[in-house]
Amino acid sequence: MGLIIQKFGGTSLGDAEKIHRAARRAIRAKLEGNEVVVVVSAMGGSTDTLVDLAYQITDRPNRREMDQLLATGEQVSIALMAMSIHHAGHDAISLTGGQIGLRTDRTFGRARIREITQRGRIISLLKDGSIVIAAGFQGVDAGANITTLGRGGSDTTAVALAASLGADVCEIYTDVDGVYSTDPRIVPEARKLDYIFYDEMLELSSLGAQVMHSRSIELGKNYGVRIHVRSSYTDAKGTDIVKEWSDFDQVIVRGAALKRNLARVELTNVPHQPGIAGEVFTRVAERNVIVDDIIQVVHEGGNTADISFTIEAPEIEAAQALCDEMAVEMPGMTPEIKPHRAKVSVVGVGMRTHTGVASRMFESLHQADVNIENISTSEIVISCVIREADGERALRAVHAAFELEPS
Amino acid sequence: MGLIIQKFGGTSLGDAEKIHRAARRAIRAKLEGNEVVVVVSAMGGSTDTLVDLAYQITDRPNRREMDQLLATGEQVSIALMAMSIHHAGHDAISLTGGQIGLRTDRTFGRARIREITQRGRIISLLKDGSIVIAAGFQGVDAGANITTLGRGGSDTTAVALAASLGADVCEIYTDVDGVYSTDPRIVPEARKLDYIFYDEMLELSSLGAQVMHSRSIELGKNYGVRIHVRSSYTDAKGTDIVKEWSDFDQVIVRGAALKRNLARVELTNVPHQPGIAGEVFTRVAERNVIVDDIIQVVHEGGNTADISFTIEAPEIEAAQALCDEMAVEMPGMTPEIKPHRAKVSVVGVGMRTHTGVASRMFESLHQADVNIENISTSEIVISCVIREADGERALRAVHAAFELEPS
Repeated sequence: MGLIIQKFGGTSLGDAEKIHRAARRAIRAKLEGNEVVVVVSAMGGSTDTLVDLAYQITDRPNRREMDQLLATGEQVSIALMAMSIHHAGHDAISLTGGQIGLRTDRTFGRARIREITQRGRIISLLKDGSIVIAAGFQGVDAGANITTLGRGGSDTTAVALAASLGADVCEIYTDVDGVYSTDPRIVPEARKLDYIFYDEMLELSSLGAQVMHSRSIELGKNYGVRIHVRSSYTDAKGTDIVKEWSDFDQVIVRGAALKRNLARVELTNVPHQPGIAGEVFTRVAERNVIVDDIIQVVHEGGNTADISFTIEAPEIEAAQALCDEMAVEMPGMTPEIKPHRAKVSVVGVGMRTHTGVASRMFESLHQADVNIENISTSEIVISCVIREADGERALRAVHAAFELEPS
Repeated sequence: MGLIIQKFGGTSLGDAEKIHRAARRAIRAKLEGNEVVVVVSAMGGSTDTLVDLAYQITDRPNRREMDQLLATGEQVSIALMAMSIHHAGHDAISLTGGQIGLRTDRTFGRARIREITQRGRIISLLKDGSIVIAAGFQGVDAGANITTLGRGGSDTTAVALAASLGADVCEIYTDVDGVYSTDPRIVPEARKLDYIFYDEMLELSSLGAQVMHSRSIELGKNYGVRIHVRSSYTDAKGTDIVKEWSDFDQVIVRGAALKRNLARVELTNVPHQPGIAGEVFTRVAERNVIVDDIIQVVHEGGNTADISFTIEAPEIEAAQALCDEMAVEMPGMTPEIKPHRAKVSVVGVGMRTHTGVASRMFESLHQADVNIENISTSEIVISCVIREADGERALRAVHAAFELEPS
């Protein structure tokens, strides 16, 4: 007997049959003696339809009205899901973001959750025997305006509800059957993980793993919510995302990731004056270009330095304009943008207590004939910037080097 | 400078161009110095789509969940309408039924309005210069459950808002350009009325005029809201539905109506005992058959009576079953159902102070060779049940007899 949150994304709710299938999962958990809260996204495709409607009206839809519009998507899903559970002879009640009292700030389009005010109502409905169907992705601000949470919002709602209600587990149903040691489309030997720590999952998300949005993992970490990622289509156990514990298996690297579509910006012979690096990155930020993997090397003598960093490919144009500007302002400085770059990374909290991880990674890349252009490390991540053409080979090499295949 | 409510139905909001057109109306009223509240229905067709989704899930959708589902229709419209007004460079804000505080009872699917709690918020938004876009048809009960108001619900919302805000006029935009003396599709000489009294409009609505649902007219009458029915497509003045006043034009009959698809039930030689009529109609009501135009004639001697009434054609089967039942229980009584009946009526508050209206009507029908089977009268209505085949001829005859053509 426990309290379970089950979250179903849009692809798990694409049509009546899929809705019935999700409903059966919820009912089964209920019949096994649990209290069940189901969190749903908008039906697959329906958000696109709504966005399309808005852009038929105007090319610059107001954000508040966009949220008012988009929130109907989940409201449709919750009603249909409740009907499906009724159809199977069980009690269910649907609640919008406003009805669960999911209070947010007023940042329309990517609101942050403040609190869940209707916890008492939800608990009382559960005690009465209902399966509670809550709309993901949406909330209300203090003025009763409807807000939406942005990308991965339904996951965030599910984890927030799990935290608020003290759920035993927050199950995320998706179209993959768990978190893998790396992308199985590139590395067929990739292994489904039984568990992964929050920090590792956070790093893998930011390195391009699509499983869950980092905001919901962060929330799960802060409130110690056990998140279980699993398939909508099978009964196989998925992957637990959990609080860190002493890992007796001595796993050093949990997973490896490949991020593509990067470019490397190199600024050579930048005048080395106090504050110059700060100024460069302020101006980059002003153009909304997100940078990563920053390296600065001061030349002998200390008068000039080389600065390099990675950007995402769609931002090359903006970066080029800025480089041209700076080249004029800083005589002697040579900017260069190298497109078609990728980044291969390994992630694992075990690195904190183990040495030799970096060298093992570099060695494996070397053996695979992959040239490393740039290295950046954090406490639990080592990343190498490489040529995009080498990406998949690099990922396979690293994955093998850390013995991430099924044992 | 006034406060105007403008209500647009689904057919006036069928696509982006229609939404822009409705938005321009609201903006024009604003630019003329008015405060403007727009009430919208769901976009044409969208309610059918939602109902269809529900029936893909279950053949007996729960009423609460159906309201949760259907309310998304107007929520889409309000957001798009607000975007359209923004697009034209004016301020607008959309509000759901919950956000305007339209509090109802808990009768899902046909809830009754209790009050509008957010009057202050609406007024303050209007004072700030916004056009307020309110969702019609929907409200919330005391438990924050979403309810819908049933047929004609958006009109009811519009009139309720007009009453609550003390609006100068409640404009109902529709696909006809006003209220006509009778159905122009049958009587080409039908005349658009400049005004009509609430009670007359109420009677015409219940006699089949499709312009507005009687509930909204009743509400308008109770709160003295001036309702103006007009076309979405032209700027022509429509018809005012207003409080009764001494009509110096001495109009006796305001309009004529034809209601089709009726059947006449005749019960001959019913035992004339105390309470027997009551029992007959209780049993009719138990089968959810709605009756009208009841006539009872007691035969000479006083032992038996004939009872007749009209029903709508789809209820013939239920009525037949009941007739068969009663025929067994009341030996000597002969039931008969005559299908293909219609009812032609004239309506006008002027009848209260004029005599000779009924005879003029009967004479005109006689001249047109229409046989009258049944007559019923109220203070401001005279109705004759006739054969359906005579219906259109009868309507034209009556319309001419009371000089309802344009003068």
